[in-house]
Amino acid sequence: MTISNGNHTKWTPILTENSMNPHVKNVQYAVRGPIVQKATNYQELIAQGKGNELPFNEVIKANIGDCQAMLQKPISFLRQVLSACMYPELIGRHPAVFPKDVEKRANEVLDGLPGRSLGSYSESTGHLYCRKIVKEFIEKRDGYPSDVNNIILSNGASEIIKLTLLTATFGEGKDTTGVMIPIPQYPLYSATISEIGAVKVDYYLDEDNKWSLSIEELEKSYKKSFETCTPRVLCVINPGNPTGQVLNRKNIDEIIEFAATHKLVLMADEVYQDNVYDPESEFCSFKKALMESEHKDSLELVSFHSMSKGFMGECGIRGGYGEFVNFDENVMTELKKLKSAQLCSASSGQVALAIVLNPPKPGEESHVLFVKERDAILGTLKSKSVKVHDLFSRMPGMKVNPIMGAMYCFPRIELPQKAVDAAKKLGVAPDAFYVEKLLDQTGICVVAGSGFGQLPGTYHFRTTILPPEDKIESMLTKFEEFHRGFLEEFK
Amino acid sequence: MTISNGNHTKWTPILTENSMNPHVKNVQYAVRGPIVQKATNYQELIAQGKGNELPFNEVIKANIGDCQAMLQKPISFLRQVLSACMYPELIGRHPAVFPKDVEKRANEVLDGLPGRSLGSYSESTGHLYCRKIVKEFIEKRDGYPSDVNNIILSNGASEIIKLTLLTATFGEGKDTTGVMIPIPQYPLYSATISEIGAVKVDYYLDEDNKWSLSIEELEKSYKKSFETCTPRVLCVINPGNPTGQVLNRKNIDEIIEFAATHKLVLMADEVYQDNVYDPESEFCSFKKALMESEHKDSLELVSFHSMSKGFMGECGIRGGYGEFVNFDENVMTELKKLKSAQLCSASSGQVALAIVLNPPKPGEESHVLFVKERDAILGTLKSKSVKVHDLFSRMPGMKVNPIMGAMYCFPRIELPQKAVDAAKKLGVAPDAFYVEKLLDQTGICVVAGSGFGQLPGTYHFRTTILPPEDKIESMLTKFEEFHRGFLEEFK
Repeated sequence: MTISNGNHTKWTPILTENSMNPHVKNVQYAVRGPIVQKATNYQELIAQGKGNELPFNEVIKANIGDCQAMLQKPISFLRQVLSACMYPELIGRHPAVFPKDVEKRANEVLDGLPGRSLGSYSESTGHLYCRKIVKEFIEKRDGYPSDVNNIILSNGASEIIKLTLLTATFGEGKDTTGVMIPIPQYPLYSATISEIGAVKVDYYLDEDNKWSLSIEELEKSYKKSFETCTPRVLCVINPGNPTGQVLNRKNIDEIIEFAATHKLVLMADEVYQDNVYDPESEFCSFKKALMESEHKDSLELVSFHSMSKGFMGECGIRGGYGEFVNFDENVMTELKKLKSAQLCSASSGQVALAIVLNPPKPGEESHVLFVKERDAILGTLKSKSVKVHDLFSRMPGMKVNPIMGAMYCFPRIELPQKAVDAAKKLGVAPDAFYVEKLLDQTGICVVAGSGFGQLPGTYHFRTTILPPEDKIESMLTKFEEFHRGFLEEFK
Repeated sequence: MTISNGNHTKWTPILTENSMNPHVKNVQYAVRGPIVQKATNYQELIAQGKGNELPFNEVIKANIGDCQAMLQKPISFLRQVLSACMYPELIGRHPAVFPKDVEKRANEVLDGLPGRSLGSYSESTGHLYCRKIVKEFIEKRDGYPSDVNNIILSNGASEIIKLTLLTATFGEGKDTTGVMIPIPQYPLYSATISEIGAVKVDYYLDEDNKWSLSIEELEKSYKKSFETCTPRVLCVINPGNPTGQVLNRKNIDEIIEFAATHKLVLMADEVYQDNVYDPESEFCSFKKALMESEHKDSLELVSFHSMSKGFMGECGIRGGYGEFVNFDENVMTELKKLKSAQLCSASSGQVALAIVLNPPKPGEESHVLFVKERDAILGTLKSKSVKVHDLFSRMPGMKVNPIMGAMYCFPRIELPQKAVDAAKKLGVAPDAFYVEKLLDQTGICVVAGSGFGQLPGTYHFRTTILPPEDKIESMLTKFEEFHRGFLEEFK
């Protein structure tokens, strides 16, 4: 951008593409990339009544795990307590505005906040009241002690994942911290690694074995990484995003052994822990497995959870946490200091987390409705996971693993050579080419596999399983039509 | 920390004080530093009934601008709309739960959110509905156009300040970006500069001239900075934190001229724009002044605002924004991408900002109450600013400038040489020594001037003017008693 100003001289900004932080420029975040912007533009055209010439009358955003944008209903108890905390004058009115246990809980929450207000800052690590509930949730889940001083609440899990990676990144040249991440991965990891100047160390999940994580592959990737960096962190996503696999206990134990042997900090992204659909799978936390291993006192583990996913799906509320195990006390102090310069995370996110991790108990007024709502959401997600999987399984040129957990399907597509050539001519990744055509022809927005990483020469896309039940059928039908047409066009 | 594990070998964590990101270790954030932790510990002792041996029965946290923790009442209209948006089932009930204009506004907000839910993600830069209101607020305030595409909503102002500094930081050695900041400053700036590896370039505010900002001092600091870096950013805080000055228009014009001449990106922290108490001062935004200058198309300006301060004081809600003027389009794209990897800021903060920047209008049901509440809060802050100023003015060995704006008093203290020596013996800054004694003897927590920066050889502390009116008198009396006793002890 060069602008003529009043003096008729040319002006160039100080910050340009070429003069700015190069780490920032290297950041890539496909889940919200250009394809999503294009989908948003289509949406706006339609909203303004200017979409007549489009071959669709609706955009379906299956690019992001945004449950409530896809009309998933919030959990009533959670929203009632938050509503009461926002405007406490509603508590104790006649006639009553809320059920009794909602009012009781809201008062309990308010008692835990400075000045009884959601408008007060919390401690940098989060309100003690909320951290206590997180601690109790973890203890109940795993059967092992947790400590409020090792829990840091954050704006979604993303923020604390970034702070942890930043703290663990140091060294120059080959001594720079290497961060091992699965491929395919959730691009928060690659984006953050770029931003902070760490080195990305890829390990590949085994697509032919339901996206399982093999220790041989970890070893191979670990050894190779010394060519460019010093590996210090191992990230695992379980249940997997975008891959949907659920690790079994044996695999988890092996990963712990691997991290301990090679002196790696283990970062376990467990934000989909409520989302397990495969009847033969069960979520086991890395914390529990660690506590039952011989490394219980000798492996730095941090485990992340969030309220954006699960059955609550409260993405916009931004509530998440990290639990740090076996971290050096001084490092914890540094992490907390780092968080403190941003003051604290949003109090409504902290409180929401505390409500949802401590749901109504049997016998309490809101219990029946809570269970009904929770089970309905998880049941619907499960049935949609089957529908989505079944459709892509039967499509020609597609290969898809079972959706054991999380909220996504990540099919592999065999693209005809003519499509690959056409994409290359345009200078775009072949799967991005496919995905853009899908959007242009059907209004369905998914993300190309290249945004998550994949074995060179393979092509994928990620779709969520979140569109409402009445829409998912027609979406899948339109998708199939498009796919068959695409194969025909480029055969 | 070294732990013996089951194998009787010693285990040392990977991350320690000596092996972690050194930039993170360099971060200092005094507003939440060790003195605040000590105050929190005293509070807990008292809460547990174990405070009998303390010389006070209450801790007064005057260290941080946390309005509602100091019992400032939230604005009813704001909280009612947020409450209704959290649980929309309350809208349209009989009998009505909320005033009619609250219900209308809540519906308007919900219409602006995907899936009509606070639980949906927003666009990375914030909900378009909210950005439109920010744009209209800016246009009304300044009389010049604004653009929704140049506005980024964030978790308080802190987040977007950090993203901006990060984007502007590049280069190695003497080419590293230098960031000019006022001394004394709000330590978010120094903390962030440390974290991202930029170079801090101090310019001193003139204490003898009501903390004014002199262009000569800017020039001097700018020239000197080339010894260590390449200055690219100039930060100005107006009204000042911790110093409380309000810049006049002439000064603002000069600063714009200075930044344009030296090709600096201008960052204007204007979060206290509602908090002006001096009848002869008036807030003028840098945006307005820039638009009326010959540099209107040739200076990169970003202006920050927040809902944590002002009359709303909603710190915990975390709503803020940055407006970027004359930024290169590609740089804006990079900034937005950076924000997108953290998905979006908390939707309740975004919505709260949109409510408070578009308050009820004359004739609407909630208008009278809104005006009454707003004026009462600003009136109380003004009268407290006078009380606090007057007390410190009359204390021996203290010198204090008028509190023209913001929420703080930053007195200079002449510490007796014996006190300075005692502090040095303990290895602490003399004003930190004073401040800790104040806390230990009275329960009053303020922050030492060394946490904000000050001219070498001078000592200060920052106190907020926020404690409730009925407490501020006794706080000031206790403070005076302590101060006179301290002078006596070390004379």
